[in-house]
Amino acid sequence: MPIDSPAIRWLDDHLLLLDQRHLPSRTEWLAIHDAAGAATAIRDMAVRGAPAIGITAAYGLALEASRLGAKASPDTLRPALEVLAGSRPTAVNLFWALERLQQCAAELEGNTLARRLIREAENIHHEDQAANLRLGELGAALLPHNATVYTHCNTGALATGGHGTALGIVRSAWRAGHLREVIAGETRPWLQGARLTTWELMQENIPVTLVADSAAGMLMAAGRVDAVVVGADRIAANGDTANKIGTYALAVLARHHDIPFIVAAPASTLDPAMTDGGGIVIEERPADEVRQVGGQPLAPPQCPVYNPAFDVTPAELITAIVTEHGVIQSPCAATVADYLSLVTRRPG
Amino acid sequence: MPIDSPAIRWLDDHLLLLDQRHLPSRTEWLAIHDAAGAATAIRDMAVRGAPAIGITAAYGLALEASRLGAKASPDTLRPALEVLAGSRPTAVNLFWALERLQQCAAELEGNTLARRLIREAENIHHEDQAANLRLGELGAALLPHNATVYTHCNTGALATGGHGTALGIVRSAWRAGHLREVIAGETRPWLQGARLTTWELMQENIPVTLVADSAAGMLMAAGRVDAVVVGADRIAANGDTANKIGTYALAVLARHHDIPFIVAAPASTLDPAMTDGGGIVIEERPADEVRQVGGQPLAPPQCPVYNPAFDVTPAELITAIVTEHGVIQSPCAATVADYLSLVTRRPG
Repeated sequence: MPIDSPAIRWLDDHLLLLDQRHLPSRTEWLAIHDAAGAATAIRDMAVRGAPAIGITAAYGLALEASRLGAKASPDTLRPALEVLAGSRPTAVNLFWALERLQQCAAELEGNTLARRLIREAENIHHEDQAANLRLGELGAALLPHNATVYTHCNTGALATGGHGTALGIVRSAWRAGHLREVIAGETRPWLQGARLTTWELMQENIPVTLVADSAAGMLMAAGRVDAVVVGADRIAANGDTANKIGTYALAVLARHHDIPFIVAAPASTLDPAMTDGGGIVIEERPADEVRQVGGQPLAPPQCPVYNPAFDVTPAELITAIVTEHGVIQSPCAATVADYLSLVTRRPG
Repeated sequence: MPIDSPAIRWLDDHLLLLDQRHLPSRTEWLAIHDAAGAATAIRDMAVRGAPAIGITAAYGLALEASRLGAKASPDTLRPALEVLAGSRPTAVNLFWALERLQQCAAELEGNTLARRLIREAENIHHEDQAANLRLGELGAALLPHNATVYTHCNTGALATGGHGTALGIVRSAWRAGHLREVIAGETRPWLQGARLTTWELMQENIPVTLVADSAAGMLMAAGRVDAVVVGADRIAANGDTANKIGTYALAVLARHHDIPFIVAAPASTLDPAMTDGGGIVIEERPADEVRQVGGQPLAPPQCPVYNPAFDVTPAELITAIVTEHGVIQSPCAATVADYLSLVTRRPG
């Protein structure tokens, strides 16, 4: 069955990815036929967003099994697995999806294996859409009426299988009639907020105002922000959350101004094997992402740059973590453990 | 006497401004012959930085008096004064410089008036260079040995008559051998940090690393910042400080991490008539400064934008204000009043 979502289209024998590097200027689709193509699309950020990366990696491995045909086996798939696992280090959804496919692959081979992996990738895709709709509703219920929500990066339909995580909460709140406005931080250096979040929200006529990231503090001081809602790339067992660079600063600012700081993510973003955020590998991206925009220089070409793609927000700065299974209020090792013991973490 | 500084060159009958909109890609000088030209250069940010704006406005009014020649008088200069005063609203140095020239103009006319205003503009220019050298030394003494300093915007030779305010402290510390490195926030949307601060520091081989503004929080959390040093556009009588958008967020982050937050500015930046920061007019700049870089779209062209150029940092978040006359520790109404009663605020 073909599955459509705004950025990831599965067409039974190949995958189409909306190339997010060119948005909002133009809409181009990349055709992916194997694991190497999927890994390149992930590494070069044609597709981005932790859940979308997981879905793409799953399809990439399934396509590789199809390509191998009769030769497909857990052993022959190993190089493809390694290429995909090496594409980006921080988001756990990538590793979670690959592990889930590996479990399906055990003791299968050939076309049976390929068909099984395709079905599992489709399941992951479907489940992510459903999870986002559910967590969107749960999160929207946490917002005050007529709320102005500050958000960071893009956590919408483009970053997921559909609907979105933090933007899923925004969408659900808008549809329920109790969202006033979204303030989108532009999210340097890659400008996911400026390029993607505004574009997504404007397509649905959800009111959005774009600001430089550095304006967040003064907006909070002026009383113009009712809640900060962000996504996550990996959540440790104590609730520490890795997310797009700048998330930590927003959490400190929200605490200073006594504003709720909400993390939205599917349960697959929780990594119980990671005790706390200190162990999460933070990807460093190329210097030219900061020194240039679209090839145009913004800084001296030889200027030294530090370009971490993510930071870690300690759990004590997070008001609540919202997943499709429920809300973890005041996240810490105990409340996350309670949550994990109460829910089936990995349906399917 | 011709006065040279890196961005403002006075050539007796006209002014040359280094057009900072094109840095670091190319070095172009704008010739200014009258008040309208100076006002346009200020409004369109060919020249920027509170002290440099004040100096440029002073030369602009003096050039207007020269242009009027025998007709120059306080009355005939009034339209030029208004055009210059309307060029940008937030930095007080602009109004301070114009007021100082108005006082000189009283009871003079014709070429005598023009010569007097030129001399006064030169005085303002010279005094700013000297003030920066002095405050640089005073501020450098506040830094720990081998300090890594985080700075925002450009407060260097390009923003002043020479040497710089926050970057003046950096320069003085470097020359004294106790600076390790500067971390420059890129300072969206106008990218003064990326385009100007890196360029200035690299020319003197002072070690600098460029980061996205949103990386400041995680750098502080990682223990990589020993002090935050910024400039100011206007300082109220209680120490509240208007400066480039993002300064307030840096002050909140510095407080959260127990890092000294130092404001550097010449005494002309103090506005004793402004009781507190609540009264400071915050300029809003055009939306396309956020939606585009160099004409290249970063966001949907119709996307609503909020683009405040400045924010106000309350005095309680400021460790010290450094001027050429001394250091105001723990600024508040009382310590600022003490400082004002001890120093000659407006030499010349």
